[in-house]
Amino acid sequence: MSTLTAQNRERLKEISVATLSTALMKKGLRNQVIYGSLPLNPKGPRMVGEAYTLRYIPAREDLDHIKVFEDRSHPQRKGIEECPPGHVFVIDSRKDARAASAGCILVTRLMKRGAAGIVTDGGFRDSPDIAQLDFPAYAVQPSAPTNLTRHHAMDLNVPIGCGDVAVYPGDIMVGDGEGVVVIPAGIANEVAEEGYAMTQFENFVEEQVRAGRTIFGLYPPDEKTRAEFEAYKAKKK
Amino acid sequence: MSTLTAQNRERLKEISVATLSTALMKKGLRNQVIYGSLPLNPKGPRMVGEAYTLRYIPAREDLDHIKVFEDRSHPQRKGIEECPPGHVFVIDSRKDARAASAGCILVTRLMKRGAAGIVTDGGFRDSPDIAQLDFPAYAVQPSAPTNLTRHHAMDLNVPIGCGDVAVYPGDIMVGDGEGVVVIPAGIANEVAEEGYAMTQFENFVEEQVRAGRTIFGLYPPDEKTRAEFEAYKAKKK
Amino acid sequence: MSTLTAQNRERLKEISVATLSTALMKKGLRNQVIYGSLPLNPKGPRMVGEAYTLRYIPAREDLDHIKVFEDRSHPQRKGIEECPPGHVFVIDSRKDARAASAGCILVTRLMKRGAAGIVTDGGFRDSPDIAQLDFPAYAVQPSAPTNLTRHHAMDLNVPIGCGDVAVYPGDIMVGDGEGVVVIPAGIANEVAEEGYAMTQFENFVEEQVRAGRTIFGLYPPDEKTRAEFEAYKAKKK
Amino acid sequence: MSTLTAQNRERLKEISVATLSTALMKKGLRNQVIYGSLPLNPKGPRMVGEAYTLRYIPAREDLDHIKVFEDRSHPQRKGIEECPPGHVFVIDSRKDARAASAGCILVTRLMKRGAAGIVTDGGFRDSPDIAQLDFPAYAVQPSAPTNLTRHHAMDLNVPIGCGDVAVYPGDIMVGDGEGVVVIPAGIANEVAEEGYAMTQFENFVEEQVRAGRTIFGLYPPDEKTRAEFEAYKAKKK
Amino acid sequence: MSTLTAQNRERLKEISVATLSTALMKKGLRNQVIYGSLPLNPKGPRMVGEAYTLRYIPAREDLDHIKVFEDRSHPQRKGIEECPPGHVFVIDSRKDARAASAGCILVTRLMKRGAAGIVTDGGFRDSPDIAQLDFPAYAVQPSAPTNLTRHHAMDLNVPIGCGDVAVYPGDIMVGDGEGVVVIPAGIANEVAEEGYAMTQFENFVEEQVRAGRTIFGLYPPDEKTRAEFEAYKAKKK
Amino acid sequence: MSTLTAQNRERLKEISVATLSTALMKKGLRNQVIYGSLPLNPKGPRMVGEAYTLRYIPAREDLDHIKVFEDRSHPQRKGIEECPPGHVFVIDSRKDARAASAGCILVTRLMKRGAAGIVTDGGFRDSPDIAQLDFPAYAVQPSAPTNLTRHHAMDLNVPIGCGDVAVYPGDIMVGDGEGVVVIPAGIANEVAEEGYAMTQFENFVEEQVRAGRTIFGLYPPDEKTRAEFEAYKAKKK
Repeated sequence: MSTLTAQNRERLKEISVATLSTALMKKGLRNQVIYGSLPLNPKGPRMVGEAYTLRYIPAREDLDHIKVFEDRSHPQRKGIEECPPGHVFVIDSRKDARAASAGCILVTRLMKRGAAGIVTDGGFRDSPDIAQLDFPAYAVQPSAPTNLTRHHAMDLNVPIGCGDVAVYPGDIMVGDGEGVVVIPAGIANEVAEEGYAMTQFENFVEEQVRAGRTIFGLYPPDEKTRAEFEAYKAKKK
Repeated sequence: MSTLTAQNRERLKEISVATLSTALMKKGLRNQVIYGSLPLNPKGPRMVGEAYTLRYIPAREDLDHIKVFEDRSHPQRKGIEECPPGHVFVIDSRKDARAASAGCILVTRLMKRGAAGIVTDGGFRDSPDIAQLDFPAYAVQPSAPTNLTRHHAMDLNVPIGCGDVAVYPGDIMVGDGEGVVVIPAGIANEVAEEGYAMTQFENFVEEQVRAGRTIFGLYPPDEKTRAEFEAYKAKKK
Repeated sequence: MSTLTAQNRERLKEISVATLSTALMKKGLRNQVIYGSLPLNPKGPRMVGEAYTLRYIPAREDLDHIKVFEDRSHPQRKGIEECPPGHVFVIDSRKDARAASAGCILVTRLMKRGAAGIVTDGGFRDSPDIAQLDFPAYAVQPSAPTNLTRHHAMDLNVPIGCGDVAVYPGDIMVGDGEGVVVIPAGIANEVAEEGYAMTQFENFVEEQVRAGRTIFGLYPPDEKTRAEFEAYKAKKK
Repeated sequence: MSTLTAQNRERLKEISVATLSTALMKKGLRNQVIYGSLPLNPKGPRMVGEAYTLRYIPAREDLDHIKVFEDRSHPQRKGIEECPPGHVFVIDSRKDARAASAGCILVTRLMKRGAAGIVTDGGFRDSPDIAQLDFPAYAVQPSAPTNLTRHHAMDLNVPIGCGDVAVYPGDIMVGDGEGVVVIPAGIANEVAEEGYAMTQFENFVEEQVRAGRTIFGLYPPDEKTRAEFEAYKAKKK
Repeated sequence: MSTLTAQNRERLKEISVATLSTALMKKGLRNQVIYGSLPLNPKGPRMVGEAYTLRYIPAREDLDHIKVFEDRSHPQRKGIEECPPGHVFVIDSRKDARAASAGCILVTRLMKRGAAGIVTDGGFRDSPDIAQLDFPAYAVQPSAPTNLTRHHAMDLNVPIGCGDVAVYPGDIMVGDGEGVVVIPAGIANEVAEEGYAMTQFENFVEEQVRAGRTIFGLYPPDEKTRAEFEAYKAKKK
Repeated sequence: MSTLTAQNRERLKEISVATLSTALMKKGLRNQVIYGSLPLNPKGPRMVGEAYTLRYIPAREDLDHIKVFEDRSHPQRKGIEECPPGHVFVIDSRKDARAASAGCILVTRLMKRGAAGIVTDGGFRDSPDIAQLDFPAYAVQPSAPTNLTRHHAMDLNVPIGCGDVAVYPGDIMVGDGEGVVVIPAGIANEVAEEGYAMTQFENFVEEQVRAGRTIFGLYPPDEKTRAEFEAYKAKKK
C-alpha cells in the first residue's frame, strides 16, 4: 500500500518522533502525534510500520458477552490473525481506557505473526507481561477489565481516530520512547528524508551544546554554522 | 428496518426519556442515554425516529479544506440529502465540540426533507437559529467553527458511538426536554409498551403525590395501591 | 440543630450567594460554594434551610436492581419521607451526573412535605418537570437514567462532600440564581448579619455606578463615601 | 490601534461568529473561537470591539485578601476604569471558573464607561444581574466566589490566552448568540468584507433551502447557482 | 467477616487482576476494577486482603488545621492503628489527588502492624519512600501536600466509593502490577476458583501462542483444544 | 533577589517537598505544590533554585511558524541563554501538554549554563534523552510536537501560573522525587528552617515506627516523645 523505500524504513528507526513531528509541521500538518499514548516498555525496540486498524464502538450488554469470541469473524480476533507482517495494529478505543483494548495473549500472537507493533488510545490488560515482550506496544494506561465491558469490535482496516489523530490504513506509524507519530502514506518518503537530514544536524548541535556552545547562531544555524556542519558531515563520511 | 408499530411510534412521543431508560434497564441495558447531549430548544417538539448515522474522524489539514464540499459524495452533504424521512440523523463527533457537527443550512434542509431530528455528541454552529426551527436538535454545546477544523466526514449509516452509547442504524432514537435515549431496534415495541404502562402509572403517582400522599406503599406500589391504580385506569377509559 | 434566628433566615433570602461567599472568605473559608450546581429554574424561589444529607456510593449490579425500592428502609426513599420541613435535601453524588440523583415524583413529595429545596452535585431526571415546580432544585445537568445504574443510596444525614464542598447536617444552605453556598451552622448568624450589611452597601454602590460614578473611592469606599453611605442609610429608614 | 473602518465595524455586527470563523479558516487560522465562553444573555446586543486585556495568575493567600481592592492600582479595578470606550474587556482566567472573573458592579461600570462588552474564559458572579444588563457578557459558567479565592490580577493590556485562543490587545472581538471569535487586528477589514459577502450568499441559500431546494449545486454553488445569486443580489439593491 | 478459604487466599496471589475482572464479568459485575489506581512499586509483592475503609470528605479551613492529629480519635490515625492484620486499608479520596491520602510514616506503621496493603483513589506523599517498602501501595499519582489541605477524615469501615467502584468492608481486594480489583465478600471463593481455572488455561494458551499457534480454535478453545488442555493438566500434575 | 542563606539552600536539598508543603501550610499557604508535574528522572539530583520564568500563550498559525527561532529575541531561546546560574527555568504552558515546552537541546544548554533545573506544567520533547541528563526536569507528560503547534513564547521573568500555583520570579523552587513546591522568596529562610527541624523529627519518627512503635503519642509527639527526641538529637551531635 505504501511505497516507503527500504532505506527510508531503516532511517525512520533512527529518527525521533519529535523530529518527525517537526518535519510534518513544515508541511502544514500540526496534529499527527497520538496524544497520551506512551510505550509500555520505554527501553524496548523502535516501531516503524504501516497502519492496520481496528475500530471499537461502545459495548452493549446484550451484544457484548463472553461468548462472542467463539465467532472466528469477531473483528478483534480476526484482525490479530490477519494484520500483515511489518504492519502496526492501531486501535480506535475512543480514548476510553476503562476497559482493555487487548491483552497479552493477543499481543503475543501479533508479535509471533511478525507485526511491527500495537497502538491504542485506550489501555492494555496484562500490561506488566506485555512490557516484558520484545515488541513495541503503546497505550494510555494499564486497564485490567476485558474489552467487552466497554468496547465492541466493529470493523477492520477502515480510517479511524486514535488519540485525536486521523489514521488511514497504510499510513506509516513510527514510535519511540515518548510516543507515536502518524505519517500520511503519500509523503512518508519525503518526511523520512527531511527527518534524516534534520537528525544529522541535531546530532551536530547536541555535540556542540554539550561542549558548551551557545544556541545563538547554532540552533537555528547562521551561515558560519552551516559551513561548519557541512565540514562535520564531510568528516563523518 | 425497524418494525416499530405506528401505535408504538405515537406512544414513544408521550413517554419520557427517563422512563424509557428505566424500561431498558429492566432488560439489562444500563447505558442507552447519550451523555451530555441536550435539546437546543427544550420546548420544541418531541423526537422519535430510526437512527441514520454519520461518522466523523479527526481532520487532517491537507484533506479537510474548504473545497471538499464541492464533491457531491462528501458524506456530510450526501447524508443530509439521503437520510430517509422519519429518521434521526445521528453524528459521532467523538465527543469533541470544538468544531461544529453541522450548521443551520444543513439542519434546515434535513427538516425540509422530513427527517425526525438530529443528534450529535459534539456541537452545532448557528445554534441560535437552529433553536428557532420547529425541529428537534440535540448537542453538547454551541460550536461556531466549521466541521473542517476538527472533523472529517468518513462514512454513512455504519454503527457508531455517540456520547458513549452504541448506535446501530435503525435503532429507535427518542428525545425529550432532557436528552436522547437509544432503543435497540429489536426491542423497540416491547420497550414502548412497557414504557407506556409505566407512564400511566407514574401519572397516577404524580397526581397522588401532588395531593399530598406519601411515597411509601405508592412508589413502588403495594397491593392496595395496585388496586387503586386499576380503578383509576378503568375510570380514565 | 442550627440556631439561625428567624430574622437572619429572612435576611438570607435577600443576600446573594456571591455576597455570602465573600463574607465567608473574610472568615478564612474560601471553599464554600458548590461547584457546578445550578438552579433548574433560575427564576424560581430563593432557597434557605438546614442541610439534611443523602450519601451515594457507586452502584453494584447485584445490589442495585429495580426491586430495591420496595424496601421502605431504602435510604433515598426514607430520606425523602424524613427530611424535616424547612430543611434542604443535599445529595453527595460524587460529581457523577451520568445517572439521576432523584426525579420529579420524589422532588414533588419533598416539596409537599415542606422541605426548603434539593441540591445534588450530579443530575436530576424529569428535569423539565422539576423546573416547573415552585421549589428550588440545583443540579449539574439533566440526567435521565435512574439512580440505580450508577448510584447506591448508602446513608442519611452524615457529613458529605457535595461539589467539592464539605456539608455537615445542619449547615445552612443558601441558593440563588447562580448557585449554592454552604454556611457552617456555628457561624450562620454572623455571616447573615455581615452579608446583610454588605448587601445594603452594594445596593448603594450599584445605584451610584448606574448613575455614572467611578468605582475609585466608592468600591471599596473611602472616608467620604462611607459618610455618604451613612446618610443614604439614614434616609432609607 | 486597529484600523477597522466604520463600515466594516457595522458589518461585523451582522455577520455570525460561525461565518467569521470560516472566513478566518480560509486564511489558515483554525483556532480563533474562544472555547466554552457563551453569552449570559443570548438575546442581548451583538458585540464588536478592540480587545483590552486583563491577565490573572493563581491567587496566593497572603497576597490576595480582601484589602487589596483599596489600592487604586489594583489591575482589575484600574482596568475597569481605563478600558477605552468601544473596546472589549477580555480576561485570561486560565479557564478556571471556580472563582469569578468579575461581578455586576464592575460590569455595570464598564458598560457606563462605554465599553463594547466583556469576555472571560472563567465565570462571572452576580450573573443573573449581569444577564439583565443591555451589555454583551460572555463566560463559561456562573461563579459566585470572589476572584480573590483563585485569581490574582496581574497586568493589563498584554497578550493573553483566553479559552485556548491567543488574544492580542487591539484584536477585534466579535460575539453573537453562540460565542466569541478573535480577529487579528491586521486582517480585520479583509475578514469583515469576506464575511459580509459570505453572509449575503448564506442568506440567499437559507431562503432557497427553506423553499425546499436541495443543497447539491447550491451550497457550495455551481455555475448556475452563482448566476442566480448575482441576479438575487441585483434585485435586492 | 469474609469466609475466604486459606487455599483460595493463596490462589488469589497467583491470579491476575485482569483474569479476576473477567471472572466477575461472567457473574454480571462489570465495574469492579478501581480506575486509575496503580502500584507505586510495580515489582513489589502481590496484594490480597479484606477491605478496611477510611472515608474522606472535603476539608474546611477551620476544622482541618495542623493540630487535629493530636486527637487520638482522628479517623486517619485511629484507622492506621486499628486496621486488622491481613486487611487492606482502602481510602475514598473522591478521586482527588491534589492532596495526599497518607504518607510514608503511616504506611510504614500499617506495614509493621501486618496489614496486606493500602489503596487510594487519590495520591500518597513521600511516594518515592513508599515505593521502597516491601508493601503493596496503590494510588493515582504522587501528591506532596498534606491531606489537611483538601481532605477531612470522616469515618472508618463504612461502605465507600474508590475510583468509581463500590467497596464494602470485608470485600476482598486483590492487587497486581496493573491495578486493584474488588471482589464482593460473598462470592470471593467462587471467583477465586473460577479465576484459578482460567489462569491454568491461560498459561497453557500463552505457551501455545509463544510456540507459534493461531488463536483460532485455541482462545476460546474448540473441542480439540479442550482435550489437549486436559492432557496438559494431567501431565502437569 | 532572594536572600536565601547558603546554609538554608543546602538544607533545602535534604527536605522533602511533602515536608515543605506542610511548613507552608502552617503559614496559611495551602496551594504551593505544582499539580501534576513530576520528575523525568525520579532518581536524579534534587532541585533548589530561584524561579526564572517563561510565559507561553496559545499559538497562532501566522505568527508561530518554523522561522521564528531565527530571531535572537525569541523569548524561549533568549530565556535559555539568560537564565542566571543557580536558577530554575519555570514555564507557564497553561497546563497544555499537547505540544512541548522545550526539548533536549535547550535543556542541555540550560544545564551547561549552570541552571538548577527546569519545570513546566506541560510536556517536554526528547524526554527519554532529558531523563538521561544529570539535571532536574519536571513535566506532566512526554510531548513530541514542537512548541510552535500550540505555544507562543510571550515574555520572560514575569509572574506566572504553573500547575495552578502562582510563581513569582525569585521564588524558591524545590523539587524532589514526587514534585515541585514554590516557596515565596520572602519566607524562604523561615520555611527552610522549619522544614529542617521537621525533617529531623520525622527521621526520628521513621526510625521508631520501623522498630515497631505505635504512632499514638509519637506522631504528633506527646511530652514523653518530645523528651526522647531531644535526647536523640543530643546523641546525634
